[in-house]
Amino acid sequence: MSSTPAPDQPRPTASARPGGRTARIRAQVLDAVRAELSENGYDALTVDTVAARSGVHRTTVYRRWRDVGGLLTDVFDDAGDNDWRPRDTGSLHGDLAALNHEIQQSLTEQPSLAIALIAASFRSDEAARALLRLWEGKYADCEIIIERAIRRGELPEGTDARAVLLAATAPIYHQLVLLRATPDPSLPDHAARTATLAASAGAFTSPHSPN
Amino acid sequence: MSSTPAPDQPRPTASARPGGRTARIRAQVLDAVRAELSENGYDALTVDTVAARSGVHRTTVYRRWRDVGGLLTDVFDDAGDNDWRPRDTGSLHGDLAALNHEIQQSLTEQPSLAIALIAASFRSDEAARALLRLWEGKYADCEIIIERAIRRGELPEGTDARAVLLAATAPIYHQLVLLRATPDPSLPDHAARTATLAASAGAFTSPHSPN
Repeated sequence: MSSTPAPDQPRPTASARPGGRTARIRAQVLDAVRAELSENGYDALTVDTVAARSGVHRTTVYRRWRDVGGLLTDVFDDAGDNDWRPRDTGSLHGDLAALNHEIQQSLTEQPSLAIALIAASFRSDEAARALLRLWEGKYADCEIIIERAIRRGELPEGTDARAVLLAATAPIYHQLVLLRATPDPSLPDHAARTATLAASAGAFTSPHSPN
Repeated sequence: MSSTPAPDQPRPTASARPGGRTARIRAQVLDAVRAELSENGYDALTVDTVAARSGVHRTTVYRRWRDVGGLLTDVFDDAGDNDWRPRDTGSLHGDLAALNHEIQQSLTEQPSLAIALIAASFRSDEAARALLRLWEGKYADCEIIIERAIRRGELPEGTDARAVLLAATAPIYHQLVLLRATPDPSLPDHAARTATLAASAGAFTSPHSPN
């Protein structure tokens, strides 16, 4: 209904730059999904509201993303497609605390896209699978924290990187996502310290000792 | 439409036993909610399907529970109304491992009412508040684990009971609820061991040391 030209009509000049037009449309649509999710939640998310908000023609959105599941999956995949790397603070405790502060920030900002995506994962199997791929990528990116700590001599060789990362970050998710607690500003640091202490004592050196 | 007598019609003899008829109707209705949630999930839950499954007249269900939120809240409250106590195994590690095994069991059984209730908490604020009350009660019940460990000399005086319980149990919830990982049979014991090790080293003695 708008009188401005639809930005998704074929434009030979724009599409001459490889990925230019396609990438721009994707960015517009995914921005609209993120804004809708954060403001109105999964229940209100439809392809039509996303198309209207993005300014991209609904036919294009339906053709390329098919349905809400396709839109959500692409938002998750986009979140994993960046050059994010964990901070290198020079110590295991510092690295894990920095990671936990980032997680706490993402779960407490208002509105929180992270919380909206987690909520969506309880509604849609496709969103749940996409969230898992995203987290798998993030945890894999973070394994270097443990590798650095082993090189510095802070942790024993053979420390299970994933288990340390899980122990360090799980309390943040549990408190904020499941227990919906008021954010405790000292928790990111404290959970990092606890995991560091246990890891330094060899609690995560494989194989696990039997009970 | 059934020709069997509606079990929720007034019956002076039954209601002579205090709470008898009321308690029986509540049990029938909550059993139906739990079965519907576990089998068909929150999205399919309606007062009418619950009434039909329970054999209690829908007018009674609407009058007493009002809506799906009221039904869910009562299921959560009922789950907190029991004489559950954490096991006393004689050691901090044993007590936390037993608790974690119970949690892992409740999250992995098929169908899992616990997972269905958690999923519902992302859909309904009323369910979320009820889930918090339930967890608050469970964690309060578990504080005795830490008190016993302090009395045995396993933990320093002033150990923050809630923080130890959070550290011990969070990895189970994170792995199974958010990361939807294949259950790791060694995780309950391992997470208990990690928390025990950190707690014994004084990581949870208040006040938290500053960064």
